[in-house]
Amino acid sequence: MATDPHISKPKLKFAKSLSMKKVRAEESLFVVEGWRAIEEACSSGIRAEMFLHTPAATASGQHAHVFESARRMARESFEASEQEISAVAETVTTQGVVLVLRQFDHTLEHVLSAANGAKPRIIVALDRISEPGNAGTIIRTADWFGADAVLLSEECVDIYNPKVVRSTMGSIFHLPVIESGGADGCSFIESLAACSNAGYTVYGADVNAQTDIRNVTWAEKSVIIIGNEAHGLSESVKAHIDETITIPKFGKAESLNAGTAAAVILGSMRL
Amino acid sequence: MATDPHISKPKLKFAKSLSMKKVRAEESLFVVEGWRAIEEACSSGIRAEMFLHTPAATASGQHAHVFESARRMARESFEASEQEISAVAETVTTQGVVLVLRQFDHTLEHVLSAANGAKPRIIVALDRISEPGNAGTIIRTADWFGADAVLLSEECVDIYNPKVVRSTMGSIFHLPVIESGGADGCSFIESLAACSNAGYTVYGADVNAQTDIRNVTWAEKSVIIIGNEAHGLSESVKAHIDETITIPKFGKAESLNAGTAAAVILGSMRL
Repeated sequence: MATDPHISKPKLKFAKSLSMKKVRAEESLFVVEGWRAIEEACSSGIRAEMFLHTPAATASGQHAHVFESARRMARESFEASEQEISAVAETVTTQGVVLVLRQFDHTLEHVLSAANGAKPRIIVALDRISEPGNAGTIIRTADWFGADAVLLSEECVDIYNPKVVRSTMGSIFHLPVIESGGADGCSFIESLAACSNAGYTVYGADVNAQTDIRNVTWAEKSVIIIGNEAHGLSESVKAHIDETITIPKFGKAESLNAGTAAAVILGSMRL
Repeated sequence: MATDPHISKPKLKFAKSLSMKKVRAEESLFVVEGWRAIEEACSSGIRAEMFLHTPAATASGQHAHVFESARRMARESFEASEQEISAVAETVTTQGVVLVLRQFDHTLEHVLSAANGAKPRIIVALDRISEPGNAGTIIRTADWFGADAVLLSEECVDIYNPKVVRSTMGSIFHLPVIESGGADGCSFIESLAACSNAGYTVYGADVNAQTDIRNVTWAEKSVIIIGNEAHGLSESVKAHIDETITIPKFGKAESLNAGTAAAVILGSMRL
């Protein structure tokens, strides 16, 4: 097995600085850690900049194929200590491997124009979802239920936040996750309008809405908007909604978690 | 408004020690923080030991009725500094109020024998759910969908863990949440057997199961078991399951989050 040089101090410093959203955005990079996520990244064909691994990471011979894929894919490949890897990965339970990736350049236009025979077509849109675990879980659930894309409003948590990436459990590499103001420069509101123009029906989930999801005849092309954990849907977003929908309540809870609401709605559409 | 003495150092030390699971179990106490949770606790009729509040907590006159309920309900009531309250509540965003409560003494026997006209009857059972946010979210979702109780296996996270309590968003006070080996001394396996004897059908959610939830004719009395985030259902639990069920997949995600799976199944039963 080929050996790599130990990472230099300036490169390590650079890799660590990607923990800051501002740096991630400026450099258009982000970090994934652990064999599973790296394997998913490699199969997705995304561009990789830097692969860091401890000398012990493949000592057992396990994951050798992922190791080789990552080394081949990355522009540069370095050895680093466990401590150095942990500092870049922002977790204590790293498996001694970290991959620095180029951010996605998915566009909504591409999603809308894709010839996709499968019906129904679903886009999940997140309006000001701020909790990383919620955003990640919704991306994972959207993937499970075969949504075509996840669209995020400007005020959502950064999808390249390591906690978001981790909680998608690899799904961030399975379907286009599109930030507003991203590759195609569209605002969230413009994106919703583009979906409407492309024949999508825009549904907004609202705990106070009139229409029970049991009574909805889902359109063949749907956008499902999930609102902020505490404040629900934005006023500016409401103007672009064709139908506000609600999950009927049988008990005493005041509301559902945003990730839970998304799961119940997607389940209800598909099952 | 009556004033309370400032909390003594030994009492503060005692309140802080409730952050340890061992002490919570020995003392049979736990802590809730913030007006919402305290209001829910007061309406639930649970016994309260100690109410701590900053001098500023009710300065605005807001929440005066909750303040008075908590003071009336608690055996003792003290003023404390913001810093002291934060140390007891284990959060930086406290609203300057903390209530120390007696742990629940719910029993499964009581749940099974309760005359409840509503159908279907649902008990949600958690097998080794270890992540506090997952446990809390499932309790909240079970409450929303009108489950009669949530039952936890011995290996689950402590329900009195502040992160669990917080993520239930008050639902922990709405329905019986029953720990195995708790008030009635039953093991998780014994509780599942008791449900079977009481005419419940026991369903286990498993990503590899044969039966698609779309093809299940739900029994009038159901137990839904949700397994561990990474390892699924325990072998010892599987022996007590009448039917293993699975959520069909339409995309590429390898699995669903445990809280998401519970939400999709409960939604599918109810909707």
